[in-house]
Amino acid sequence: MIVVMKAHAAEAEIEAVVRMVEELEYRAHVIRGVERTVVACVGEERGEAHSLQHLESVPGVERVMPVLRSFKLASREVRPEGSIIDVAGILIGGRRLVVMAGPCAIESAQQIEAAAVAVKHGGANLLRGGAYKPRTSPYSFQGMEDQGLYLLEDAGRKVGLPVVTEIMDTQDVDLVAEHADMLQVGARNSQNFSLLRRLGKIRKPILLKRGMSTRVDEFLMAAEYILSEGNPNVVLCERGIRTFETATRNTLDLNAVPLLKEWTHLPVIVDPSHGTGIWSLVKPMALAAVAAGADGLLIEVHPNPASALSDGPQQLKPESFEELMSALRPVSEAVGRSL
Amino acid sequence: MIVVMKAHAAEAEIEAVVRMVEELEYRAHVIRGVERTVVACVGEERGEAHSLQHLESVPGVERVMPVLRSFKLASREVRPEGSIIDVAGILIGGRRLVVMAGPCAIESAQQIEAAAVAVKHGGANLLRGGAYKPRTSPYSFQGMEDQGLYLLEDAGRKVGLPVVTEIMDTQDVDLVAEHADMLQVGARNSQNFSLLRRLGKIRKPILLKRGMSTRVDEFLMAAEYILSEGNPNVVLCERGIRTFETATRNTLDLNAVPLLKEWTHLPVIVDPSHGTGIWSLVKPMALAAVAAGADGLLIEVHPNPASALSDGPQQLKPESFEELMSALRPVSEAVGRSL
Amino acid sequence: MIVVMKAHAAEAEIEAVVRMVEELEYRAHVIRGVERTVVACVGEERGEAHSLQHLESVPGVERVMPVLRSFKLASREVRPEGSIIDVAGILIGGRRLVVMAGPCAIESAQQIEAAAVAVKHGGANLLRGGAYKPRTSPYSFQGMEDQGLYLLEDAGRKVGLPVVTEIMDTQDVDLVAEHADMLQVGARNSQNFSLLRRLGKIRKPILLKRGMSTRVDEFLMAAEYILSEGNPNVVLCERGIRTFETATRNTLDLNAVPLLKEWTHLPVIVDPSHGTGIWSLVKPMALAAVAAGADGLLIEVHPNPASALSDGPQQLKPESFEELMSALRPVSEAVGRSL
Amino acid sequence: MIVVMKAHAAEAEIEAVVRMVEELEYRAHVIRGVERTVVACVGEERGEAHSLQHLESVPGVERVMPVLRSFKLASREVRPEGSIIDVAGILIGGRRLVVMAGPCAIESAQQIEAAAVAVKHGGANLLRGGAYKPRTSPYSFQGMEDQGLYLLEDAGRKVGLPVVTEIMDTQDVDLVAEHADMLQVGARNSQNFSLLRRLGKIRKPILLKRGMSTRVDEFLMAAEYILSEGNPNVVLCERGIRTFETATRNTLDLNAVPLLKEWTHLPVIVDPSHGTGIWSLVKPMALAAVAAGADGLLIEVHPNPASALSDGPQQLKPESFEELMSALRPVSEAVGRSL
Repeated sequence: MIVVMKAHAAEAEIEAVVRMVEELEYRAHVIRGVERTVVACVGEERGEAHSLQHLESVPGVERVMPVLRSFKLASREVRPEGSIIDVAGILIGGRRLVVMAGPCAIESAQQIEAAAVAVKHGGANLLRGGAYKPRTSPYSFQGMEDQGLYLLEDAGRKVGLPVVTEIMDTQDVDLVAEHADMLQVGARNSQNFSLLRRLGKIRKPILLKRGMSTRVDEFLMAAEYILSEGNPNVVLCERGIRTFETATRNTLDLNAVPLLKEWTHLPVIVDPSHGTGIWSLVKPMALAAVAAGADGLLIEVHPNPASALSDGPQQLKPESFEELMSALRPVSEAVGRSL
Repeated sequence: MIVVMKAHAAEAEIEAVVRMVEELEYRAHVIRGVERTVVACVGEERGEAHSLQHLESVPGVERVMPVLRSFKLASREVRPEGSIIDVAGILIGGRRLVVMAGPCAIESAQQIEAAAVAVKHGGANLLRGGAYKPRTSPYSFQGMEDQGLYLLEDAGRKVGLPVVTEIMDTQDVDLVAEHADMLQVGARNSQNFSLLRRLGKIRKPILLKRGMSTRVDEFLMAAEYILSEGNPNVVLCERGIRTFETATRNTLDLNAVPLLKEWTHLPVIVDPSHGTGIWSLVKPMALAAVAAGADGLLIEVHPNPASALSDGPQQLKPESFEELMSALRPVSEAVGRSL
Repeated sequence: MIVVMKAHAAEAEIEAVVRMVEELEYRAHVIRGVERTVVACVGEERGEAHSLQHLESVPGVERVMPVLRSFKLASREVRPEGSIIDVAGILIGGRRLVVMAGPCAIESAQQIEAAAVAVKHGGANLLRGGAYKPRTSPYSFQGMEDQGLYLLEDAGRKVGLPVVTEIMDTQDVDLVAEHADMLQVGARNSQNFSLLRRLGKIRKPILLKRGMSTRVDEFLMAAEYILSEGNPNVVLCERGIRTFETATRNTLDLNAVPLLKEWTHLPVIVDPSHGTGIWSLVKPMALAAVAAGADGLLIEVHPNPASALSDGPQQLKPESFEELMSALRPVSEAVGRSL
Repeated sequence: MIVVMKAHAAEAEIEAVVRMVEELEYRAHVIRGVERTVVACVGEERGEAHSLQHLESVPGVERVMPVLRSFKLASREVRPEGSIIDVAGILIGGRRLVVMAGPCAIESAQQIEAAAVAVKHGGANLLRGGAYKPRTSPYSFQGMEDQGLYLLEDAGRKVGLPVVTEIMDTQDVDLVAEHADMLQVGARNSQNFSLLRRLGKIRKPILLKRGMSTRVDEFLMAAEYILSEGNPNVVLCERGIRTFETATRNTLDLNAVPLLKEWTHLPVIVDPSHGTGIWSLVKPMALAAVAAGADGLLIEVHPNPASALSDGPQQLKPESFEELMSALRPVSEAVGRSL
């Protein structure tokens, strides 16, 4: 941590800062520059240590700049070789790409089964589907809830695919963990720390989506909540961030993919369906995600998007999904991966 | 809802859209323009009605534009005179401004009591303090939890101020509602729909903060979740949005204040502490908020910010809070309000 | 400047960095922390000195963090008492607020004269009007150009108000400087460095608008371009930034007002017309700007907004402008200013 | 254009709107909905026609929604097969990808020649280099200006590559057009309409970069400025937008690539150097750009990035550029393109 003093900080103010830093069990190095004095603080800056950020309110201090990024267990430094997460036998993070596909929301037994057959046939490795739906409007379809969860489990079993579904409430964790192979935390709950901590106490793999306005370092701190409670099975998902651009639903931040691969050992997948909000952009952006180094994809596929109860415009028809998978094969190979 | 057809949409595609619109019980008006045909759909567009947005995935459709904003119970149209919310006898939304003040986090009995005495003395109407703290890092101080809640209640009682505190988990709603006079939903939970729905089932007033990347219409839809479950006691709080600007912690969006006053009947208060993240900007932005039409303020005050366990840089000392309140009086009167 | 080395930087890499730093005539202090080694560089960091930022591409370096903000002549440190800029006898930056008002675009002699009479009557101190208009579409009205400039000058002279107008092209600088009392740089040209440098070579006051996505430090660097060429007469104008919010045309960043007043000695005014894009929000945001510490306002006023050739929705009618000025008086006094 | 009336608009207000619409030579269709009346206006909405947006300031009007996107000559509707732009024999927009590479700034004859040899050897099709540099700070290296331009021309001639360089000032257009094969408009000038119009009057190809906060529709309107003045040779370049994310210099918006390919016939290339600001992310994002459908790349390559006078951290060494080109070949083929 570097404490930058104000231009005309008094000697007594500098000494007071040094004393406070040392009381917090850091060593303080005072460096007197041409226009500013800085106090470099040496000590454990991450993890349980006391933050020095509050020194910003001490007289004479201009600002406090952290030297280290604050995530720790999620850092690639602790596992340079990268993590591989096992979801009911499907390995995420290895050479082979993993494709999770299915409808935005589970609407009926018939619909989820048709979707399951379609995505299995197209080559998906996991079946996705929402039972509990976070909708902007309370008047929109809120999902089939528990009933949807059972239908998803059944549909997955029938076609032989593990299933992943969103969890929205700490109270539902046990139930969902019993019936799903992987629990997804949606963008709106990516900093719902009560939920993250609760998910750290189970062992089922977690698919953690980036929040709409979550910086990459904060995204890793959200993962750190789960990891620090004891659950090492976290897969990250870039799904687009909110920007000034309105032509697409979100701005898919593919920069985050290679950056995350540098910073963390956790696998990274990409959701081009939410990341664009427009079905015709899903295929090119899926290819781009893989070219950027993603470990897998999350794709919305609906047997009949025009009748979908949620997010119709961004869901692929089964035939478009097959087309996407065909296009994906050569791109995967071009970057040394397989499907 | 207006459905815009593509440039060269076939007649059969237009007819198919009309049929789908009518099946959803809207009337369809086809208007043939020079370059585009549009289908105007007449019917109940808000509330429980079926959304037409999914028509965007129908062949020949370019896009679907809603005519109405989607909030309903929160709309000023339903209560042109504005709502006044009663928090244990303190009225929010009337001529008199309401100031809620206190520390970011409750750290000890001594600290919260010192804060309570200071803010009461300074002229605050409610005491605020965090017992459950949503912190970006799992290694940061997470709040005193239940114990903090009891200390807050005691401190408020001693100085005669109602208390407001943040609620993070559906499981804590009953406990917090028993010990606090108002429950705050933080920015990170502003689209935690499980929590919002649960809060709609109690009658205690809710202080709903805007999310970091929540548009004004989405903010009102979050309020709509609470209102539609039966709790009419919602106060909105603008606390800054996330933008590209990094010199301040957030960008306080005061535009939202007069805009919300036009769109909704709910009271609107402003939090310049989070909205700036810098204690020296709190006073000018508090004055600006009131000049823009806010019904009140939420101000972080700590007996000793330099030792604070959370958000030290943005908390005011008691003497700065008094200075703020003194400066606030003439500005309030200048805009026809009182303190 | 602080150079942060990577976690496992080799000793030779650290030594290489020290050598490079010293070759650039800085002194290097090596501080060995628990997890990282940092090299603190002491020397003149601003102005003509060589930047050290490119050390980020040197092997073993993780990142380079500047200690100082990079503006120099614009810094309040060089003129703690604040600058007062004289525009044809009107002083900007003193106790008295300055209001610049007039139409977005000059449309005819009749229109600009009617506007001039109206804003003079309402109490404005300068007349504004656009002769050269930066319009998003090449098919929109592009302004009356030179002809508009002369009409503006005449209208100002008739009512006894100095005039301010936008300059878009280096080739027009001499002409505009001859006919206007103040030259405005619009948001889209706020980082048109050729234009800024050219304006640094004249002595007429410059009204520099913040760009739509310009951070506060970059805004001051834009001012620094003008100052460093020799023109000290710069007034800054906050006019809203671009964010994800679409309910308003821009997000007026009033945080920037008190922040700029801390960082720079240059006067700061606010444009709530562009900052909101909605006429009914102009008055409350004008009051808020003054409460936040602005030295003046830029307000769009049109004799008949419904027929305006540009930006109709955000322009005030003369009677609304008078109402704004009446409301402004008590707020100005409440914050120790006069109108 | 759709005019939405307020909830309780009077009959006289509706009639007044209809009259105004008809005076502007549109036909007006009045549609009376359950909660709102809308007036659909039929007529030529784009190009030279009069905008109806100012109706927003007419009494009783809630808002005005355009039906059509406002670009016209840039629209794919006018040239469904796509444009191919010829830059001194290099075709941009065809099956073959085009790679433009070279240093951020021209620093000396030796440096630009070394760069030219390196990028030619690596397989680039055009040589890029900045002679006039838009730098945030007036104290940073501003480019070698005219001298740099001649050095670039020479270096290109020696290795047999056409050259592209940035133009910042209308006054330099003739000189730059004489010595360069393609003129680049930088992000900060992407809405410098004086410059765009001037570039519409020459025939040399223009490389138009997207502004940091320019929406896709505004980007196409900037192109429209050039096209509407008569120069059809425009290539678009996505180079990252400004968002809240600070881990990367910009957020490369690859969504814009397939979206632009749908909306416009103009070729689209991508600049992953500025789009990320971090050299190690350039290769994965270059591959992603091509997978997303880009027609080419703009890559910063410097013989010795650690000594670069500008943007060192994001420039590739010659060997990294060769590695990128090798990796690019199989990805290009996987998406049906060649290098």
